[in-house]
Amino acid sequence: MLILLTNDDGITAPGLLAVYHELTRLGEVCVVAPETVQSAAGHGITISKPLLTSRVTIDQGVVGTAVDGRPADCVKLAISQIMPRQPDLVVSGINSGANVGINVLYSGTVAAAVEAAFLGLPSVALSLLLKNDITTDYARAARDSVTVIQDLLKRGLKGGDVVSVNLPALRAEEQPKGIKYCRQCTRPWVDTYDRRVDPRGRAYYWNSSIFALGETESDTDVAFLRGGFITVTPLQFDLTRHDQLKRWQS
Amino acid sequence: MLILLTNDDGITAPGLLAVYHELTRLGEVCVVAPETVQSAAGHGITISKPLLTSRVTIDQGVVGTAVDGRPADCVKLAISQIMPRQPDLVVSGINSGANVGINVLYSGTVAAAVEAAFLGLPSVALSLLLKNDITTDYARAARDSVTVIQDLLKRGLKGGDVVSVNLPALRAEEQPKGIKYCRQCTRPWVDTYDRRVDPRGRAYYWNSSIFALGETESDTDVAFLRGGFITVTPLQFDLTRHDQLKRWQS
Repeated sequence: MLILLTNDDGITAPGLLAVYHELTRLGEVCVVAPETVQSAAGHGITISKPLLTSRVTIDQGVVGTAVDGRPADCVKLAISQIMPRQPDLVVSGINSGANVGINVLYSGTVAAAVEAAFLGLPSVALSLLLKNDITTDYARAARDSVTVIQDLLKRGLKGGDVVSVNLPALRAEEQPKGIKYCRQCTRPWVDTYDRRVDPRGRAYYWNSSIFALGETESDTDVAFLRGGFITVTPLQFDLTRHDQLKRWQS
Repeated sequence: MLILLTNDDGITAPGLLAVYHELTRLGEVCVVAPETVQSAAGHGITISKPLLTSRVTIDQGVVGTAVDGRPADCVKLAISQIMPRQPDLVVSGINSGANVGINVLYSGTVAAAVEAAFLGLPSVALSLLLKNDITTDYARAARDSVTVIQDLLKRGLKGGDVVSVNLPALRAEEQPKGIKYCRQCTRPWVDTYDRRVDPRGRAYYWNSSIFALGETESDTDVAFLRGGFITVTPLQFDLTRHDQLKRWQS
């Protein structure tokens, strides 16, 4: 099995390296990832400038291709130029921070996986909830991630399928409560900004929203992740709202 | 009626000004748009740096707020900080270039509209197909856009609804063939890159894909726009693939 591994935190991010080591149990892993942090890059792509690439040693014996572009660029470039053949699976992550609820729209991690699905490949986005009072354990999240990926492969994950997996923040002695297949919460954030004035008198605003897991229904990714479960949400890239379209067409 | 107008081509783009003038027939228009071109920005947002703002005279008597961020940032900031009250409608565009098919995912123009819908407001994204051999007529596209917006308002466009409108490229003597309510084409692009070497010997790649309106089914935005119709596609921001989720949950 040939696996493309990318992310949005950049090629040197610890979450990428941790899952790299676990994925090698499933097959050959090719790393093509952004040169720099691309958090909240959304599904941007680079068309008006060229993409510089370089070979980067991430860890002893682990070499990847860094691309000075966005997560979706890495997937496009890897598949069309860098990889010897089409990968059998694309993995994006492990992201430093959850991608549940409406964050799914902003997430570069998810965008990379959606790009892969859109190009006809099976793909999985991996994101780890961070909590200030819990030491982040990427190695453990990587092990749990591969357990979920193996489950998805058994269920017949196929080309064009894209799945977003979120891992809970756990203390060393804690275990995930289980795996929940669940929907994305679609409730809005409440945006807050600090208004300040720069040294030249120009107003600026800094987003001060608390992206905590807010109010939600009990059957969503937000609820289950907060409850200590691993959440698994199959995604789509057909943005048409078909029910409304039918009403408008008739 | 209070209207927020934004875009992804930047506050000085001709498509924005053209539709500004037409929208003033419907109500008061408040312009909050990116300071610089943000094409293919996708649904990125800015959280790790502050957003500088400035008041910009776009045209005689037309003043707006420029934000050095992305389209979705402009919507967030406008609604939470800049506008005197919640707008009754959010309009994004007119984009220089169509946003049909999978481009919907990459489009900053659409992302701004989705952001507004997600915050509970009705919103419309406007995009104009460009053709090399046809002189781009934003004034005319703006008139057609407002005709469509009026139709959508009559149909009861409500908070949380987001609609993507694409306008055909027309010669002066041509008319749109009509308005088609239709779905997004979800076929992939074929990505191509030129591989080159920079003056320091580093490989770089430049996306050379032809984003022409490629193969598609007859009932899609791509097909109808190519046929000279104005296309109207209601969008959603719930990315859950509910059919697959149900299968996996059972």
